[in-house]
Amino acid sequence: VSTWINGRSRTTIDHRDRGLQYGDGVFETMRVRHRRIRLLDYHMERLYEGCRRLKIAAPNQAMLRRELVSRAAERADAVLKLIVTRGIGPRGYRPSGQERCTRVISRHALPGDRAGSMLEPKRVRMCDTRIGMNPALAGLKTLNRLESVVARGEWRDVHVWEGLMRDVEGNVVCGTLSNFFIRRGSFLMTPMLDRCGIAGVMRRWVLEQARSLGLRTLEGRLRWEEFGGAEEAFMTNAVAGIVSVAVIQQGADRVEFKHGETADRLRARLELL
Amino acid sequence: VSTWINGRSRTTIDHRDRGLQYGDGVFETMRVRHRRIRLLDYHMERLYEGCRRLKIAAPNQAMLRRELVSRAAERADAVLKLIVTRGIGPRGYRPSGQERCTRVISRHALPGDRAGSMLEPKRVRMCDTRIGMNPALAGLKTLNRLESVVARGEWRDVHVWEGLMRDVEGNVVCGTLSNFFIRRGSFLMTPMLDRCGIAGVMRRWVLEQARSLGLRTLEGRLRWEEFGGAEEAFMTNAVAGIVSVAVIQQGADRVEFKHGETADRLRARLELL
Repeated sequence: VSTWINGRSRTTIDHRDRGLQYGDGVFETMRVRHRRIRLLDYHMERLYEGCRRLKIAAPNQAMLRRELVSRAAERADAVLKLIVTRGIGPRGYRPSGQERCTRVISRHALPGDRAGSMLEPKRVRMCDTRIGMNPALAGLKTLNRLESVVARGEWRDVHVWEGLMRDVEGNVVCGTLSNFFIRRGSFLMTPMLDRCGIAGVMRRWVLEQARSLGLRTLEGRLRWEEFGGAEEAFMTNAVAGIVSVAVIQQGADRVEFKHGETADRLRARLELL
Repeated sequence: VSTWINGRSRTTIDHRDRGLQYGDGVFETMRVRHRRIRLLDYHMERLYEGCRRLKIAAPNQAMLRRELVSRAAERADAVLKLIVTRGIGPRGYRPSGQERCTRVISRHALPGDRAGSMLEPKRVRMCDTRIGMNPALAGLKTLNRLESVVARGEWRDVHVWEGLMRDVEGNVVCGTLSNFFIRRGSFLMTPMLDRCGIAGVMRRWVLEQARSLGLRTLEGRLRWEEFGGAEEAFMTNAVAGIVSVAVIQQGADRVEFKHGETADRLRARLELL
């Protein structure tokens, strides 16, 4: 891992940083391919939207972009993680409004795939851990990720790639580290993220591609009971891209999906980015 | 501020610490009076309960207790904050199970009271920011505190001491940094924390005192509409103790409360601790 904090090669942060104290910040996890950041504009837009909604004084955008581009250019393939916290503040939840943000950029090797090639359809499980509904934070990729940590801690079977999480009303929202899509005929459906969940950059890209693939998109409430009628299911994130789902298990129940032609076409397009 | 990290006088933590990356940890904020930590046993019980539920390998209890007691003994009055994170881990939500926890102890001066003496009844507002329901984390004082940060950011009026937060169904849960009680006759009511909210150590102490004050306790769902019938209201936390509420405002609406005799009696008992 190589790390830069506020532009300098460093590995430690002040314990008073509100990122540690309260999870008061946002992050992006980006895929570097051919020395370039895939979907960089989308990452930047989400990051700045998060800072705006949380009233975090964001880093200068041109400067941050230059820094990310130059860190990406040093590796053919990598993962870049960017954390932006509100910065150091006195004890107490209330931001003073005078904080200067902290930015942490870390560069990692691509994850080894414990569950086989990402081109193989994957096994997915339904998690018991629920996602709390909070419209004020919905869609944002904040540093408050304990729900994902607890959900991801539910299983150790390396053949299960991902877990699907539901809100307290039982609606499917997203995976622990991905977004979820099902296709029925020409309808591509994904959960609405107005009350909870993270609006992934790859999810956005898929929704934007759909029309030119002859698909109509539907963002709504989606339940386990509705999976049976779907022809294909896939999950998305910025690092893994488009990952087809072979089967979703919930205890003794399971729903299987056919080979995913939409996922194939999306992957082919993603290769061209 | 004086700070000790894993027992050494230090001020920085590794950026890979899961406390920063995911808010993967818990904390306690303790009041030092007469060189001793008030309600230390309750703080320790909540901390270890949090570690147990999150499967964080907790610090040795005897060692931690010795350390806290010795930091407290160096000041007549202070606030001690203890953070325990899961520790440093590789990128990814799933804990390896091999992490060694990080403990951060910081000692602070008592907060200046921006809204006058803590013995004066306080003004409280209803917050717009809602608390997400999450039974897996309910009651715990985790490092995922963005909801409190956003709620506390709603007002700047120094005469408003605290804000009350509701869950997405509109039930009152707790303040941004305190728990909430109302009394009607001999019934002392406080919100149930089975779905969200933090179970404060001072809340626990109040519930345990109630019987010997001739009060019956009721933990349930509590709504704004029910405040009108109450004779007194107060809020509690480990540092401020028992704080009487004079008025709660919601937009143009307001509910006023009489002078709080139960709060007075609780404060008198707290003085003896």
